[in-house]
Amino acid sequence: MSTRAESYLVGLIGDGVMPSLTPPMHERAAEVHGLHYLYRPIDLTELNLPASDIGELLQAGAKLGFNAFNVTHPCKQLVLDHLDDIAPMAKAIGAVNTVVIDEGKFIGHNTDASGFARGLEEGLPNSKKQKVLQLGAGGAGAAVAYALLASGTQELHIVDLDEQRVTHRVQELRKNFPQASIHAATPAQVSQLLSEADGLLNATPIGMHHHPGLPLDITALEPRHWVADCIYRPVDTELIVAARDLGCQVLDGGYMAVGQAVDAFEIITGIRPETHQVREHLLEMLEKGL
Amino acid sequence: MSTRAESYLVGLIGDGVMPSLTPPMHERAAEVHGLHYLYRPIDLTELNLPASDIGELLQAGAKLGFNAFNVTHPCKQLVLDHLDDIAPMAKAIGAVNTVVIDEGKFIGHNTDASGFARGLEEGLPNSKKQKVLQLGAGGAGAAVAYALLASGTQELHIVDLDEQRVTHRVQELRKNFPQASIHAATPAQVSQLLSEADGLLNATPIGMHHHPGLPLDITALEPRHWVADCIYRPVDTELIVAARDLGCQVLDGGYMAVGQAVDAFEIITGIRPETHQVREHLLEMLEKGL
Repeated sequence: MSTRAESYLVGLIGDGVMPSLTPPMHERAAEVHGLHYLYRPIDLTELNLPASDIGELLQAGAKLGFNAFNVTHPCKQLVLDHLDDIAPMAKAIGAVNTVVIDEGKFIGHNTDASGFARGLEEGLPNSKKQKVLQLGAGGAGAAVAYALLASGTQELHIVDLDEQRVTHRVQELRKNFPQASIHAATPAQVSQLLSEADGLLNATPIGMHHHPGLPLDITALEPRHWVADCIYRPVDTELIVAARDLGCQVLDGGYMAVGQAVDAFEIITGIRPETHQVREHLLEMLEKGL
Repeated sequence: MSTRAESYLVGLIGDGVMPSLTPPMHERAAEVHGLHYLYRPIDLTELNLPASDIGELLQAGAKLGFNAFNVTHPCKQLVLDHLDDIAPMAKAIGAVNTVVIDEGKFIGHNTDASGFARGLEEGLPNSKKQKVLQLGAGGAGAAVAYALLASGTQELHIVDLDEQRVTHRVQELRKNFPQASIHAATPAQVSQLLSEADGLLNATPIGMHHHPGLPLDITALEPRHWVADCIYRPVDTELIVAARDLGCQVLDGGYMAVGQAVDAFEIITGIRPETHQVREHLLEMLEKGL
């Protein structure tokens, strides 16, 4: 049955995923490559389902012919209990955002980290990344910290209001990167740490449409800093705009959004979409207010 | 989200449905109309699931973004317990082969009957259909008997080896068509009944690849009879070939297969595919041995 062997059915499971632009990014990339590909958002909020249903949803998906799922908040850790195998990077990060169904087996991957790493290479190719100040130690924070350290960052300071969370994150990262210098920091230390850092990375939700504002006091920001954000709605956060105005090199959250989608698409189909085309499509959708 | 509003995810639930040609018929029809449409076979045999899981599968499909399901043996009656609403014809037949999911509600339809009726109109437009001999009182038999009576057949004799089944079927049909003369018959009466009938309809599995042979002794068959079959694998059953050789007008099972698919497609999408195009596609696939 040629039609079916070449077709892909993929879902995105998480809270509030209905407006996510990941489904149309995948579908457009598939169209460009002539693949029959359908990507459904499965919104736990709209369905009134608890995050703990993730295992049941994966099982149901396998029965109903799904090839893969992307998994997002609040299921990225919960999904670990339902996998048959896990890629080394996802295991090291302790979170999975992509599950491939292969002959009924669930294989976990993490393309948040690999996608962000690719964004860094593309968007900030010549920037010094030895010392980095990162804001936020949550789900996105775990992936981007891993990506930075894997890309050669030697000194990483992570700030989070939740002291327990950041301490735990630092401990986990140290296990994977014993040579690096990784520290938990408090908001009070931000200005001092920024003055000593090469770049700044925001992995908090501050700057999103529903959480507007700046995630730090930027008086210590200088043109020599690069500034990266994980937020892509809006793609021009207050932080990105302020940094660009100051003359900093910037990496907006669109790079990470595109990177994770491109890497997931490649894992699912074996075909690598053109990153710049996917980015153009994302920016086009954001401009339309999608 | 224009991409998603215009996309359709459909499944076919039943035993041994993996090789069914209904999924590619729908997908090709969608392609012709520029619709983004994915149709997955969900094979209970391969999944080792009991037919009684039909309700659970429908619920799972609703959560995972399915728009509709086709339902086949052995779930066409079982599914009745899981519907929120049912179309009048499906209710009268007591079987559902199409379930549309509309805002979380399951609406049942029967396109076996409507599809066969359409095939009759198309393939045997000018044949007299007042007196008909039908072989088989099972699932397909219920639908085609209903279609015949709804199309004007006034005297219908149904033969089945299972006396209880045929008696029950006749009783049910009489409720819906109180003016018609509907009778259960035994295999011994076949020749006599055929000699008095306008046409013959096979709704037994005899003639399928795995059940080769003729479903009756055809010595009483005359060129004035029309002969219809519900089997489309092969499309030229021994009965159809013998009848054609004798000079009878014939309606092969491809008409019913296409009719049910075209009607289901229209219920799901609101768009009516060109029946002759779908038939050409089906015959092309059958010729390729799919």
